[in-house]
Amino acid sequence: MTRHVDVTELVLRDGHQSILATRMALEDMVPICEEIDQAGYWSVECWGGATYDSCIRFLNEDPWERLRTFRKLLPNSRLQMLLRGQNLLGYRHYEDTVVDRFVDKSAENGMDVFRVFDALNDIRNLKRAMEAVRRTGKHAEGTICYTTSPLHTNDHFVEMAKRLQDMGCDSICLKDMAALLKPQPAYDIVKGIKEACGDDMLVHVHVHSTTGVTLVSLMKAIEAGADIVDTAISSLSLGPGHNPTEALVEMLEGTGYTTSLDKERLKKIKQHFAKIRPRYAEFESKFIGVETDIFDSQIPGGMISNMESQLAQQGAADRLQEVLEEVPRVREVAGFPPLVTPSSQIVGTQAVFNVLMGPYKALTGEFADLMLGYYGETIAPRDPKIIEAAEKHAKKSSITKRPADCLKPEWDELRDKASALDGFDGTDEDVLTYAMFPQVAPGFFSTRGEGPKNLSKTAEQVAEEKAKAEAARKGIKSEVNYEVKLYGKTHKVSVEPV
Amino acid sequence: MTRHVDVTELVLRDGHQSILATRMALEDMVPICEEIDQAGYWSVECWGGATYDSCIRFLNEDPWERLRTFRKLLPNSRLQMLLRGQNLLGYRHYEDTVVDRFVDKSAENGMDVFRVFDALNDIRNLKRAMEAVRRTGKHAEGTICYTTSPLHTNDHFVEMAKRLQDMGCDSICLKDMAALLKPQPAYDIVKGIKEACGDDMLVHVHVHSTTGVTLVSLMKAIEAGADIVDTAISSLSLGPGHNPTEALVEMLEGTGYTTSLDKERLKKIKQHFAKIRPRYAEFESKFIGVETDIFDSQIPGGMISNMESQLAQQGAADRLQEVLEEVPRVREVAGFPPLVTPSSQIVGTQAVFNVLMGPYKALTGEFADLMLGYYGETIAPRDPKIIEAAEKHAKKSSITKRPADCLKPEWDELRDKASALDGFDGTDEDVLTYAMFPQVAPGFFSTRGEGPKNLSKTAEQVAEEKAKAEAARKGIKSEVNYEVKLYGKTHKVSVEPV
Repeated sequence: MTRHVDVTELVLRDGHQSILATRMALEDMVPICEEIDQAGYWSVECWGGATYDSCIRFLNEDPWERLRTFRKLLPNSRLQMLLRGQNLLGYRHYEDTVVDRFVDKSAENGMDVFRVFDALNDIRNLKRAMEAVRRTGKHAEGTICYTTSPLHTNDHFVEMAKRLQDMGCDSICLKDMAALLKPQPAYDIVKGIKEACGDDMLVHVHVHSTTGVTLVSLMKAIEAGADIVDTAISSLSLGPGHNPTEALVEMLEGTGYTTSLDKERLKKIKQHFAKIRPRYAEFESKFIGVETDIFDSQIPGGMISNMESQLAQQGAADRLQEVLEEVPRVREVAGFPPLVTPSSQIVGTQAVFNVLMGPYKALTGEFADLMLGYYGETIAPRDPKIIEAAEKHAKKSSITKRPADCLKPEWDELRDKASALDGFDGTDEDVLTYAMFPQVAPGFFSTRGEGPKNLSKTAEQVAEEKAKAEAARKGIKSEVNYEVKLYGKTHKVSVEPV
Repeated sequence: MTRHVDVTELVLRDGHQSILATRMALEDMVPICEEIDQAGYWSVECWGGATYDSCIRFLNEDPWERLRTFRKLLPNSRLQMLLRGQNLLGYRHYEDTVVDRFVDKSAENGMDVFRVFDALNDIRNLKRAMEAVRRTGKHAEGTICYTTSPLHTNDHFVEMAKRLQDMGCDSICLKDMAALLKPQPAYDIVKGIKEACGDDMLVHVHVHSTTGVTLVSLMKAIEAGADIVDTAISSLSLGPGHNPTEALVEMLEGTGYTTSLDKERLKKIKQHFAKIRPRYAEFESKFIGVETDIFDSQIPGGMISNMESQLAQQGAADRLQEVLEEVPRVREVAGFPPLVTPSSQIVGTQAVFNVLMGPYKALTGEFADLMLGYYGETIAPRDPKIIEAAEKHAKKSSITKRPADCLKPEWDELRDKASALDGFDGTDEDVLTYAMFPQVAPGFFSTRGEGPKNLSKTAEQVAEEKAKAEAARKGIKSEVNYEVKLYGKTHKVSVEPV
């Protein structure tokens, strides 16, 4: 009696987002799509999250073209995306009809599974997107952001699952973006969801690997009845990323659970990304290990590096420890939001402000909005004194209604503005690009014709660039030869000054 | 009802042996001993394995002095060592009274827990060492080397545990040196041992982390009743090393199992080794990730790098894949030995020979001895045709008795030879050093007076050396200034040609 466990492969989205700063070019994924398509995954996460932003900001790639390419190259796979509810893939709330159009266009271009979440777990912010997905007939996955606080009990998460079910979701995702989900709560929450929502409700578990314990959590989630789990191929796994797909497969041997993944194909996928990864070394997360301090600070790794660079810009790099200690206090003042985009940035930046200028002497606009309810409801009441300060700062009152209900229809205006831009191609897809990234879209539209940029570098290129820079600095006039060792191989590099 | 789980900290022995090629100098461990001593470990593994060899071969350190230092600095801790049964810490079988003396001297100098194993799981090779330990009143831990083959069933391992118990061991170690132990067999074997040997028999589980699944295996082993598990502090963990101590502690939260480790002290230990580790970067294992191919090839990572360098020396680096495929065949011919020192080297080298010169056209002396029973009995019969070839090659017959029974008393001769060496200090400890490493001991005795060598380098030293070498090569005459970035910090380095 073996129970089958399904797997979502993350390497094409969250894998490189977490480890290589979302910089992987489509052309580095194309050659391996056929193997991925045939490996037996339940779904392939390949779009959404930060990839849209990265495509237009860094890679001169049209994200819609990327989606259509995946659709073509992965004909047998469910394509999966991460969608920030009413924020879509941007950083503000959008009016409902913009949400509808984004979902329609995503489905039309090939998306199958929409994992919809809200940073505050305010399900009012998920509702419209979920309804839009259901109307397209695609798979609507309601998401619970896992976090820890005195109020985030197992019962709370189970209750949220019940509300997502009532909203009509096709599956429920327990999403642990900071690797805080320990084995016992993983078991208890999944068990609780199955009991509350019925055995037929698909439970999908997403964990990162930063703290080193979450493969055990996946084991426990599976024992409790989880249907689908998320992993990334081993050569682009671990650290701030995810548990290795192959380790999951092997872990289950003999347990009464099994995946239907093809180990030979997994090996090819592994080898492909093992070859690609070193070329993106300059974007690679510094942190590839295990960090359990996160359990106490609740601060995801990416957030720490953000705060570090903010402090460094202010010449206050030595005050990181104070900021780390300030974050939990800010989080409490703000009603214990989970720390995930965008709440992690908002709380982190305010913590930096508090340390540099004194507690709440200066507020960021986003933090004021968070305090005033413009991102939605939090699990705990927010601090009334700081709400008062935020009202003064922002010159507006706090709200209790759904944030998007404050917005007027905006599609026509967005289309007008986008239409005025050089290189706008007339499609709704382009309007959506402009809507989500109004600062970046104009530049992207105007350079789109030049085609995608691949930011990766071969070992030879890295060595050559370094040598050139050095030669220039030293005023070397003649050819210089270098032997450069990278990843165990020796490369000969000759450099001539220009 | 919480059950307490004990922990052995590996960082002072197997941690740096697996990740930093056993190169860590005692002086880099001394400052953190007090924290380790107070952290609540069941034992601290700090001696034996390859450390003895490394001390005299690379570090000009007296291993006995290292042991006495640990004894002084860890007054509240059980000191633990790894002992290769009748091989002691060397690479051949020793006559019984040499074994007795080694154990006596180790106990006298401060050792508490002796983990005794034999590479072939031939318990006749454990018996004398175990008896010697029991006579000293110290803790004798009988060890099962875990491996996989058609004959290595769970029942086989449980039966071996029973025999170790009959031999009078104080605890039983399930030792998984290649990270092959999956969760379900971990559970089944530990459960089986507890049922066969009684709940009171302490079960101690040692796993490496190479395949990424073994923290889950520790969880399952604990659920099955394991009393003690081995981990290494996070900053010197993972890859070819072990699961992080802190991850184990956190993993158990809420599960009904708990450790008594002090998290604040673990943090200090982590920070200490995070500072030390980069200085040994040149010795660091290239492989810090997850590799599940091992499950199919059964070849531990360290063995692969050995074979790679052997092939490279023969100009046949491109034939590694053939060698990897040859290893399981050689292992079958040899009766399915576990692959651990020294059987891993013996099997690996013969596989290289087979590929380069044709199957068994040439035999190494060690492989012939293995085939002829001079290392002990194997689980399966060895191939009669190759035994015949080995008899011809070695000009001796195969044996079935305990290998050490072929040896004559050798202590007096060893003492005489050691006494003749420059720098011999007259102690039995020095005789043992000579006995185990007759090639290395003379050099060590003669240079011992110069004191320990620390092979680690600061980032500044590494940069300076590189720059000097470069300057020399280019004939640069004047001072050159470099800015070197390492681990996120910028170091200014000035180099003047000498």
